[in-house]
Amino acid sequence: MSEKKTSWGRWGTDDERGALNLLTPEVVTAALGVPTTGKAYALSIPIQRTGVPNLPFRGVPQRLTLTNHDDEQMSISNGGVPGVGSSEDMLVMASHTSTHMDALCHVYADNKLYNGFPHDQVAPYSGAQRCGIDKVGAIAGRGVLIDVASALGVDVLEPGHIISRTELTDTLRHQGTALEPGDLVLIRTGWVGAFMDERVAIHPQPGIGLDAAAYLVEQDVAIVGADNSAVEALPFESGVYLGCHIMLLVDNGIHLIENMALDELAQDNCHEFLLTVGALKVTGATGSPVTPIAIG
Amino acid sequence: MSEKKTSWGRWGTDDERGALNLLTPEVVTAALGVPTTGKAYALSIPIQRTGVPNLPFRGVPQRLTLTNHDDEQMSISNGGVPGVGSSEDMLVMASHTSTHMDALCHVYADNKLYNGFPHDQVAPYSGAQRCGIDKVGAIAGRGVLIDVASALGVDVLEPGHIISRTELTDTLRHQGTALEPGDLVLIRTGWVGAFMDERVAIHPQPGIGLDAAAYLVEQDVAIVGADNSAVEALPFESGVYLGCHIMLLVDNGIHLIENMALDELAQDNCHEFLLTVGALKVTGATGSPVTPIAIG
Amino acid sequence: MSEKKTSWGRWGTDDERGALNLLTPEVVTAALGVPTTGKAYALSIPIQRTGVPNLPFRGVPQRLTLTNHDDEQMSISNGGVPGVGSSEDMLVMASHTSTHMDALCHVYADNKLYNGFPHDQVAPYSGAQRCGIDKVGAIAGRGVLIDVASALGVDVLEPGHIISRTELTDTLRHQGTALEPGDLVLIRTGWVGAFMDERVAIHPQPGIGLDAAAYLVEQDVAIVGADNSAVEALPFESGVYLGCHIMLLVDNGIHLIENMALDELAQDNCHEFLLTVGALKVTGATGSPVTPIAIG
Amino acid sequence: MSEKKTSWGRWGTDDERGALNLLTPEVVTAALGVPTTGKAYALSIPIQRTGVPNLPFRGVPQRLTLTNHDDEQMSISNGGVPGVGSSEDMLVMASHTSTHMDALCHVYADNKLYNGFPHDQVAPYSGAQRCGIDKVGAIAGRGVLIDVASALGVDVLEPGHIISRTELTDTLRHQGTALEPGDLVLIRTGWVGAFMDERVAIHPQPGIGLDAAAYLVEQDVAIVGADNSAVEALPFESGVYLGCHIMLLVDNGIHLIENMALDELAQDNCHEFLLTVGALKVTGATGSPVTPIAIG
Repeated sequence: MSEKKTSWGRWGTDDERGALNLLTPEVVTAALGVPTTGKAYALSIPIQRTGVPNLPFRGVPQRLTLTNHDDEQMSISNGGVPGVGSSEDMLVMASHTSTHMDALCHVYADNKLYNGFPHDQVAPYSGAQRCGIDKVGAIAGRGVLIDVASALGVDVLEPGHIISRTELTDTLRHQGTALEPGDLVLIRTGWVGAFMDERVAIHPQPGIGLDAAAYLVEQDVAIVGADNSAVEALPFESGVYLGCHIMLLVDNGIHLIENMALDELAQDNCHEFLLTVGALKVTGATGSPVTPIAIG
Repeated sequence: MSEKKTSWGRWGTDDERGALNLLTPEVVTAALGVPTTGKAYALSIPIQRTGVPNLPFRGVPQRLTLTNHDDEQMSISNGGVPGVGSSEDMLVMASHTSTHMDALCHVYADNKLYNGFPHDQVAPYSGAQRCGIDKVGAIAGRGVLIDVASALGVDVLEPGHIISRTELTDTLRHQGTALEPGDLVLIRTGWVGAFMDERVAIHPQPGIGLDAAAYLVEQDVAIVGADNSAVEALPFESGVYLGCHIMLLVDNGIHLIENMALDELAQDNCHEFLLTVGALKVTGATGSPVTPIAIG
Repeated sequence: MSEKKTSWGRWGTDDERGALNLLTPEVVTAALGVPTTGKAYALSIPIQRTGVPNLPFRGVPQRLTLTNHDDEQMSISNGGVPGVGSSEDMLVMASHTSTHMDALCHVYADNKLYNGFPHDQVAPYSGAQRCGIDKVGAIAGRGVLIDVASALGVDVLEPGHIISRTELTDTLRHQGTALEPGDLVLIRTGWVGAFMDERVAIHPQPGIGLDAAAYLVEQDVAIVGADNSAVEALPFESGVYLGCHIMLLVDNGIHLIENMALDELAQDNCHEFLLTVGALKVTGATGSPVTPIAIG
Repeated sequence: MSEKKTSWGRWGTDDERGALNLLTPEVVTAALGVPTTGKAYALSIPIQRTGVPNLPFRGVPQRLTLTNHDDEQMSISNGGVPGVGSSEDMLVMASHTSTHMDALCHVYADNKLYNGFPHDQVAPYSGAQRCGIDKVGAIAGRGVLIDVASALGVDVLEPGHIISRTELTDTLRHQGTALEPGDLVLIRTGWVGAFMDERVAIHPQPGIGLDAAAYLVEQDVAIVGADNSAVEALPFESGVYLGCHIMLLVDNGIHLIENMALDELAQDNCHEFLLTVGALKVTGATGSPVTPIAIG
């Protein structure tokens, strides 16, 4: 690990937020000046039992709705007002299904989490002692869409297509966008929309490759998101298990957001925007479902 | 219901978003000019088994973390790389615990949801056919903190204190803030912080009363949030079961956000800000846990 | 409903146990004399994520195992003994998946449960006020296997095959078994074993028809179980929605047990046995997963 | 471990059932002759949100009932029959709450499970590869109640009372019961009933001590159950973490059943009976909720 470029120690030996440290008030203030239309976008897909990407080992997301119109035990106190009541839900879901953010503790390599914390700081009941999703705090900054699918003139990249460094830089040039340190970069493959329209299978999936990931590290981005299930291509490039996850999450403290809904941004040719992400503060969690909000 | 002031029909007979329709691109664009410091705030409290407000009938929020360092069945394919692995979670939680947003379908009165939809459009398995949380879309606008606790010079309002219309207007005058149509109004009682510090009990709780709610309706706000469990005071003012919920959610299509973390905004005297809310798109759900993001 | 033969009132107007009332100490004592080999059988199939009958709306049964070998928060007090620890599970599952017993409240007709209780005595949060699984108590009696598949010389009945009254009586004659009041009758179609071996699909399924159900009612049996998902054939005979469920559960208070594992009994030609069923006492539940125990 | 008396290897090096191997057809046949009254007992307590023993880390058992009287998506096909419908539940619960059976893999010592299997054969997602509850099969045999509380003339033993070897043998003599190899021994402290009546706290609890456990091993029993949460006393005798669990489960392959309802047997002076236990076949689970059935 010693020769590898990493961000370990860059923000202190105790840091658990990684590249989110780039999101200074100055960066946020600059990002407030990016929007041009004032249109707001919700960049997530539905959470439901069917029709959305999921892996069997994660079970099926379930919402179970309880209503107290005939169930007095459910309310604090009904007071007997006829026709008045409330409904609530229970949710049972994997944190890494649907649109979600990976905490830095989601992956480890050489038995180490980001910043060198031992991987056994993640345990089944108490969860992550280090680098959990509860450590990310408020996320806001300049979002940049790198719409690779549109730049290549396709609806959706080929299954298994590995996005190269050159495809990223070509797309940016095509769009007229220049990356800056602290950018929240969202990569569009077209996959998730095509999957929900039943035009492609769950596997393989297009996504970035190792050299594209290295490029994003060099540009000093704060987050990488994508409209696929793993940001990186599946199967993994050259068979390197979780290769881009390791480079981004573990080595460089760059959080990932997966299964994002990016088609509406693409339709509007909205490549730069203010982006906010509100991860649920689940204590010790390795990730969180999210609905990032973009303002174009 | 006929004589009551309501917003039913104001945005069309099929509308399921209520006052969120006020958040036009113009309103959002104006809100982008509000921040002065660029500091971002995550306005939620933790989701965890203990130490946070919860009601017994909602069970206990549980995060169960699974790690594949010794569990090959969990991964897509490990490829046998020693020392490399990933961890994920299952979440089991009520949608209306911790910091959460109420969907318009959360409450009904006279057997009707907002806009007159019949209350039986909410069912246990299929959830809400109308006015579910999946209908809210992207939320962004100008946030306004009405810090009643600070204006009254207290850490936390008395248990059961019913905030009046006058207390709201006095606080706004004290702060030098003027409400505008489409504002996302957050009311600070000091309660949730005091509860987590074990200085107050779960019940009773300070919150707004019926006349304060009527004032917010008159001001044409888009959302009302608070740092307590029901926005309105508990027990309900004059014993009117869910009185403010009915006036805001049902009659006027104003979504609520509860158990918000507002102390940091108060400490910074940050009373106006950009606010974004990314509700999870849980199909048919009556609410969603959220971490709203403010930029001051 | 007035002309229909029912057991309503037979055991009192408040009765919630139905035909289980037939299981008197005398009947149980007689059943103790039935076994001839002393071999015990566990008549259930596995509860697991895949490979067993399930319907999508029930989600996927999940077991999530927590181990405290690296998680001190999980134990009452570890005391620091190296190498000592414990593991536990969380279960998330539908009550009506895998091998399970239907409570009498599971189905209603004419808006009535068994014994005429109104169907709205079952509510989402508080569950069943009447005829819940928590009312069944201890179940023991003489079990009788009616092995229709073997009697017809097949491994598994045809998909959708509707077992007739005559097929039941022919099978009993073939086996040399005579039914008695209070018998716990288990009907073998061969289906569940064939399904788990991937030789048949989830639908359609062989099972009893309306006349066979009427025969079992006439014989005054205490329970009907089967090695399929609904005891009755799927699709329902003549399209009568839940026809046999209504006749057995609702009209006559006869509990059902579904997805039973009956192949081992069949292989041993064990047609009469002592049978015990220990339903979990889930307060207000409409059913329970069970592992019935037979002694041959 | 080498000098300690264990049952490792006694039933083969691959054995995962331990002392359940004692339950031969001969033993079961003999047990069928034990009952004298034919009265059946369900030896479990309720599974519900409140009022029953539970530990916070296990969350709250939840039953969520879904009914399709107004929810067509829940049914296979309703066919539009007015007034006909069904209700089901989802269960979310810890396997080791309420009345439950510990699998042999529930505890390990010296990093070993029963029979020397490595403790890391238990993993969060795939569960127990060895000694899981899915390995126990059908359980039937002679049950013996050792009613220590009644023999000592008390309703409930003192909190934390450690039952000694002598108290067991004195109670057996008092009852006129002689233990035999393969007995399913149930020890009554009076605790669970007192807890549910709010007469004692969750902790400490009376239970057996190390010498009593050694006695039961010497008697070659097949199972040990009790009406408390851990069979052994809490806090653990001499502070030995899980001492009796280790001796019984790990060293000698004797399964445990906890939080049993034994008061009705005691009231009837029923000290010998046929006992059956139907553990749910949850693949890889470390335990199962159960309702054991006794016939007196």
